[in-house]
Amino acid sequence: MIMQSVVLFGLGSIGVEIFRALYHNKKYKIAGVVDNNPSKVNQDAGLIAGKKRTGLKVVSKISEIKSNPDIVIHATMSSLSDVNNQISSIVRNRINVVSTCEQLVYPIGSNKKIAKTLDRLAKKYNVTIVGVGVNPGFLMDSMVLMLSSLCTKINKIKVERIVDLTKRRKALQKKMCLGRTPRQTRDIMNKLGHVGLEESAMMICDALNVKPKLHTKIKPIIAKHHIHSNGVSVRRGQISGIEHNLIAKNKGSEFLRMNLSMYAGAQEYDFVEIKGIPPLSIKTSGVNGDKATVSLLLNYIPIVLSAKPGLFTLNKLRIPWAHM
Amino acid sequence: MIMQSVVLFGLGSIGVEIFRALYHNKKYKIAGVVDNNPSKVNQDAGLIAGKKRTGLKVVSKISEIKSNPDIVIHATMSSLSDVNNQISSIVRNRINVVSTCEQLVYPIGSNKKIAKTLDRLAKKYNVTIVGVGVNPGFLMDSMVLMLSSLCTKINKIKVERIVDLTKRRKALQKKMCLGRTPRQTRDIMNKLGHVGLEESAMMICDALNVKPKLHTKIKPIIAKHHIHSNGVSVRRGQISGIEHNLIAKNKGSEFLRMNLSMYAGAQEYDFVEIKGIPPLSIKTSGVNGDKATVSLLLNYIPIVLSAKPGLFTLNKLRIPWAHM
Repeated sequence: MIMQSVVLFGLGSIGVEIFRALYHNKKYKIAGVVDNNPSKVNQDAGLIAGKKRTGLKVVSKISEIKSNPDIVIHATMSSLSDVNNQISSIVRNRINVVSTCEQLVYPIGSNKKIAKTLDRLAKKYNVTIVGVGVNPGFLMDSMVLMLSSLCTKINKIKVERIVDLTKRRKALQKKMCLGRTPRQTRDIMNKLGHVGLEESAMMICDALNVKPKLHTKIKPIIAKHHIHSNGVSVRRGQISGIEHNLIAKNKGSEFLRMNLSMYAGAQEYDFVEIKGIPPLSIKTSGVNGDKATVSLLLNYIPIVLSAKPGLFTLNKLRIPWAHM
Repeated sequence: MIMQSVVLFGLGSIGVEIFRALYHNKKYKIAGVVDNNPSKVNQDAGLIAGKKRTGLKVVSKISEIKSNPDIVIHATMSSLSDVNNQISSIVRNRINVVSTCEQLVYPIGSNKKIAKTLDRLAKKYNVTIVGVGVNPGFLMDSMVLMLSSLCTKINKIKVERIVDLTKRRKALQKKMCLGRTPRQTRDIMNKLGHVGLEESAMMICDALNVKPKLHTKIKPIIAKHHIHSNGVSVRRGQISGIEHNLIAKNKGSEFLRMNLSMYAGAQEYDFVEIKGIPPLSIKTSGVNGDKATVSLLLNYIPIVLSAKPGLFTLNKLRIPWAHM
C-alpha cells in the first residue's frame, strides 16, 4: 500500500478533526500543517488538536512545506473569494487540493469566474482541485442526483436535512446564533444561514436541465422551552437555531423545495422525495455532518489523485466510497 | 438537443417497458428493434409493446440494422455467458451497449474472463459496454458504496431489499415460483433466487478492500394465509416468494449481510445500515424495480456515450442522474 503524503491547510474546528482522522490512519502521512493564525504558527499541531506532541510545527504558508506532498486538505473558509488566494498558492506549489470550501463544491453566480480562473491555473500546474463536503456536496445534492437516475420523469423534488445543533461543532453553533435573542441578531440574520443551499440547488437543476428561479428564506427558530442537550443550554425565547428554505421554480411552478433546519434538540434525519416515474423517497436516521465531511475529504483523495488536471465538481467524478 | 439513435435488443417483458419509455421520449429515436424469437421477428414492435403500429419491424440480428445507431439497449438474459455472443455481435457492429444483464453489472468468478475478452473487443471496435440495473447496480451496491464515503471506519454493513412480487412483472413472479408448492420446486429452489446478489457483494467488498468469503442461502417463503393483491392470488401453503440471504465474512467475522426478500404482499422498502464512524442508516419507501431499471438504462446513455472504449462497471463511472 502506498502511503499518501498529505498537508493539512487550516487547523480550525474541522481542521482539528481532520488532523485526528489522518493521524492514526496508516494510508496517510501528515507532511505538514499550515495555518496563518499567529497564535498557532510554530506550535505543535498535535497539541492544538488535543493529541500528544507530534513534532509537526504549524507553518504560516504553503511555500514553507518542502516535502513535495501528494495533496493538500484545505479547510478554512466557506466563501470562494475568501479562499481563492489560499487555493491559488497551493496550486502554484503544484499540489492537488481537496477543500471544504462550500462555494467551491459547485461554483455559481460570480464564483463561476473565480472557478474558471482556478481551473486554468490547475491545468497550467498540472493539478486537480475539488470541493467536497456532506452539505453542500452530498446529502442535499449528489445523493439527490444519484436517486434521480431511478426516474424517467420528475415532476417535483423535496429535500430536507434536519440537524441537532447541540451535536455539532461550537463554531457552527455560534454561526447559527445559538442562545442569542432575536433582537440581538435581527440585523445579521439574513446574512446568516448555511452556505451552500443555492449551490446544492443549482447542482441539481443544472444536471436535470432546469433553468430555475431560486427563492430563499432564512428565519431563526426560537426555543419554546428550555433545552439542555449535549452540554448546551438554550432558554425559552432564545434562538435555538435556524431554518433555511429554498424553492426553485421552473417556468413558474415549483420544481425543487429544500429545507435545512439546524437547531438545538432536533430529531435528526435527511429526507429526499421525488415525485415522478417511479415515485420514490428515502430517509436517513441522521448523519453527523462534521464526521461525514472529514470522511469525504479523506475518501475523495484517491479520486482527486486519479482525476485529470483542472477544477472539478463532484457530479463529474466517479461514485465515492470509503477508502479503506 | 441532439436526438440519440437507439436500438432495442430484446423485446421481452423489460424490453417492452423500455420500448414504451423510449417511444414517447423526444431525446431518443428508436432506430430498430432486435429479437431472435421467431414469433416476434417481422412483427411490428409497437404492437408487441401494446402500443399502436409504429412501422418498426422486429429483426432477428443486429447486423440487419443499417442505420448506424448511437447505442444498443440490450435486455435479454441474466447470465453473462448466455449473452456473450449477443453483446459481442453488437460490439463487432461498432455500437455501444448498455445492458440489463445482471452478471455484466459486476463480473465475478468465471465471468471475469468473459468480461476481459469483451473489454478487449470493445477497445478494438472503439465502443463502450456497461451493465446497469436497479439490482444489481444500484440499491444493493452503488448506493451502498456512495453512502460508505461518509465513513472513515466501517465495521459492518447491512443491506436489505424487500419487494412485493405482485407489483412486479409476470416473468419475475414465475421465476420466483409464485403460487407453486414447495414440493413442486424442491429440486430447483437452490438454482433460483435473484441473479446478482454475489455481484453486488463483490462490488462492495472489492471497493472497500475486503477479501470476503461469501455464504448464500435461498429459501422459499410460504404463504401463511390467502394473499390477493394486484390481481395475483396465492393460497395458504403455496410459495409466495423467496428470501435470498448473503453473508460476507472478512477474516472470520461478518462484514456484510444482505437480504433480498421478494414475496407477494410484502411491505416494500430498501434499507442500508453502516456500523462505523459515523454510524448511519437509510431507508426507502420502496422502489419499483422494473421502472427504475428502465430509467437507469436511459439515464446511463449519456454516460456510456461519453465514456472511453472498453467494458466498465458502474463504480468506475460518474454519478448518474435523470437525463431530462
